[in-house]
Amino acid sequence: MIQSVDRAVRVLSALQGSRRMTLTELAAALGLPASTVHGIVKTLVGHGMVVQERGSSRYMLGPRVLLLGNVYLDTLELRSRTAPWAAELARRTGYAVRTGVLLLDEVVIIHHEPRPDGSRQMPEVGIVIPAHASALGKAISAFSAEAQKAIGEAGPLRSMTGETLTDLAALESQWTEAATTGVAVEAEEAVLGECALASPLFDAFDGVAGAIGVVLPSTAWPAEPSVREALRETARTISRELGAPSWPGPRVA
Amino acid sequence: MIQSVDRAVRVLSALQGSRRMTLTELAAALGLPASTVHGIVKTLVGHGMVVQERGSSRYMLGPRVLLLGNVYLDTLELRSRTAPWAAELARRTGYAVRTGVLLLDEVVIIHHEPRPDGSRQMPEVGIVIPAHASALGKAISAFSAEAQKAIGEAGPLRSMTGETLTDLAALESQWTEAATTGVAVEAEEAVLGECALASPLFDAFDGVAGAIGVVLPSTAWPAEPSVREALRETARTISRELGAPSWPGPRVA
Repeated sequence: MIQSVDRAVRVLSALQGSRRMTLTELAAALGLPASTVHGIVKTLVGHGMVVQERGSSRYMLGPRVLLLGNVYLDTLELRSRTAPWAAELARRTGYAVRTGVLLLDEVVIIHHEPRPDGSRQMPEVGIVIPAHASALGKAISAFSAEAQKAIGEAGPLRSMTGETLTDLAALESQWTEAATTGVAVEAEEAVLGECALASPLFDAFDGVAGAIGVVLPSTAWPAEPSVREALRETARTISRELGAPSWPGPRVA
Repeated sequence: MIQSVDRAVRVLSALQGSRRMTLTELAAALGLPASTVHGIVKTLVGHGMVVQERGSSRYMLGPRVLLLGNVYLDTLELRSRTAPWAAELARRTGYAVRTGVLLLDEVVIIHHEPRPDGSRQMPEVGIVIPAHASALGKAISAFSAEAQKAIGEAGPLRSMTGETLTDLAALESQWTEAATTGVAVEAEEAVLGECALASPLFDAFDGVAGAIGVVLPSTAWPAEPSVREALRETARTISRELGAPSWPGPRVA
């Protein structure tokens, strides 16, 4: 690990969390001298990764991170392969469909097909949900030793709503269930009023590459068996397109 | 400047350009020993800024850059203030509307209101256009010494289509014109078949914060005076909302 590169990413993460910070605030957040942070911030500013807010001494993320994020999405085969099937799944079920990948102990949404009722909906690409509190995260974790380790090491499971599972043993038993059925569930564990089903997506290397899920209002919960079956079929199809030899793929040993 | 932070951003930029690269390719692109690049890449991988492609020795951008890009958009007051007026401008003119900010010698699209004809259109947020070949870039450069310097220092003006201005003196005369009228023009200089008008957006600090523009097919070019007037009015309104004391703001001395 290169120490100053690690610190530079921690500067970006701090700005991701707090949006606008002075050098003093950044130095305090990183536990480093202001002079050290100043050198890092200046270098990031030179590349447009960070900008100084106009008329202020605060810093914020810069336009280059937007560019990088856009290229990341374009590069992802998982996303391009998933998009048409996600649209089809939304059409069949009438619900919004999300696809996500793991980032340490969280899930990042890489594709979002809105509920096909023509209503105005927030775009969700780029948002994160804790892996322990989402169907997508559970579907990935059920098949990923890396995810289970990251969740276990991240400290106590954070409660998002009164319904979030905060007991690791209870979560592990849901992973086992999802590994058996290929479907993970989440009932108002991340957002009140919102429930979800998700299934893992496998690729040619027989490992879990991400997950796809449908989002249902709690009034439509538990989901009809037909929704669950459409989801499983979609995850199988996408996995096959990605070259997966089986679905669901191998469980964590 | 912190050398290893600079190199880390250059790794990200190389991956932004080439999508998937091996350590050897990255080392060649950066002109550094593979061992040096390895340490940087490993640190970036640890944070999800870069990931190793599954089943390959190539690296690509990672999910954290998507997250950062999303937070950048959310943080931008320019974007939130612009969005409703961009929608109104698209409705009034019938054309797509783009808003962009400067990144060195390029413009990054931070908001895109599609042409209001219900047709399927590529989302453009996060894409970049050379500042010298776009109406948005010219509208910003006309009022920004920083932009003019970055364009002048970036080397010969790159030709994108047969129509791109590659003579700096010709470009400078367009900047002068745009600084006078508040409207910059671009006729098939970045993409054949596509023309644009753009106007600068100013903020409370009386400097140019970005630009907003309409995109017209070349068959509708030159634009009707009413389109130009609607654009100017929109740019003035947004600038006023951002606290700008005047529009257009002060020219580069």
